[in-house]
Amino acid sequence: MEIAILAYDHMTALDAVGPYEVLSRLPGAETVFAGVRRGPVRCDTGSLAIVVDAALEEVLSPDVLVVPGWSGSKQETLLAPGRIRDWICSVDDHTTWTASTGTGAIVLAAAGLLMGRHAATHWLVADWLSDLGALPTARRIVRDGKYLTAAGSAGLDMALTLAADVAGARSAEAIQLLLEHDPAPPFDAGSVDRAPAEVVASMRAVRDYIVLGGPAA
Amino acid sequence: MEIAILAYDHMTALDAVGPYEVLSRLPGAETVFAGVRRGPVRCDTGSLAIVVDAALEEVLSPDVLVVPGWSGSKQETLLAPGRIRDWICSVDDHTTWTASTGTGAIVLAAAGLLMGRHAATHWLVADWLSDLGALPTARRIVRDGKYLTAAGSAGLDMALTLAADVAGARSAEAIQLLLEHDPAPPFDAGSVDRAPAEVVASMRAVRDYIVLGGPAA
Repeated sequence: MEIAILAYDHMTALDAVGPYEVLSRLPGAETVFAGVRRGPVRCDTGSLAIVVDAALEEVLSPDVLVVPGWSGSKQETLLAPGRIRDWICSVDDHTTWTASTGTGAIVLAAAGLLMGRHAATHWLVADWLSDLGALPTARRIVRDGKYLTAAGSAGLDMALTLAADVAGARSAEAIQLLLEHDPAPPFDAGSVDRAPAEVVASMRAVRDYIVLGGPAA
Repeated sequence: MEIAILAYDHMTALDAVGPYEVLSRLPGAETVFAGVRRGPVRCDTGSLAIVVDAALEEVLSPDVLVVPGWSGSKQETLLAPGRIRDWICSVDDHTTWTASTGTGAIVLAAAGLLMGRHAATHWLVADWLSDLGALPTARRIVRDGKYLTAAGSAGLDMALTLAADVAGARSAEAIQLLLEHDPAPPFDAGSVDRAPAEVVASMRAVRDYIVLGGPAA
């Protein structure tokens, strides 16, 4: 089973590494980070680069596609018609599952793949997802047909769900135990419904800077 | 505030990327992935390489040191006396916090930093931690003095704890909301206490292969 994870500049590392950490441990999985060209891409904070091991054209028919989210960049190349979109649409023709984390759902929606479908994304961009024809939901993980979209850093949980579907619950549980994925955040601020109102308000106020790295056009 | 994350071949990506994703977003944080030499290191599954941006000698006095864990490798260079150990001990003289995730506690203990200290590590190597003079606990996150050790993939939660200490709860909550770290695993198998007994037994049976990549010497 081939798993392709799109990697690109300004992506959020955890959005890619969470799913990778689970899916790459599936029996028979061949996982590859694919991008515009081989070599490093730099993640959104600027302090971590991960390596694209295969150019898009080298990855033709993965069984699973994962598109991670980004922050702090307008992502014109990612979101406009062109080589990345063409590749996403082309490989989506072959996938058993097409998945996204965080703002990655915006990429899938911009490519036309979520038209009329329920989907999850980062809470700051739900309106944008709607503008692109998808039906944003407030759930952490949404499955609509073969499209599995996860809000923010729910990628690890999404991938465990996918792992169980592909390889059975016991395999998913073994991976979860290997990773000791037994989270217990010290604060209850991970959801826009429960985070302190002032935290939510302060982030909404700078939404365009967080998502786009500057004011919207 | 300078945050150094040790990066090395066969490390577990999530052990590094979890803490990175939180700590690099702290106000004033300068995060750097440090390793034996600049350039890519390949993580334990073989399908992800991340980039070392600074050689060890370029990082002299970080405020925070994070040592991620590994799997599937004997890690002789990492655990034996030598350049990496010397660097860990040298920077530890300056840190406000020295932290580890998963088997990373073994690295700290091998360097003599956890002697007589309570510490958390991956459940498969608790005995090893004990052999190295530390006091393994079954908790997910353990703080003993300036040493903060986390079991398996508790690195994200550990880093939120550290973020609150460094920058206040509101900053930690804002980072948690930005990442939407609101986990809800689909299975309750992330802890050795609650995972199905057959899953635990099957992993214990191949413990040396999981941790060391082959039989213990």
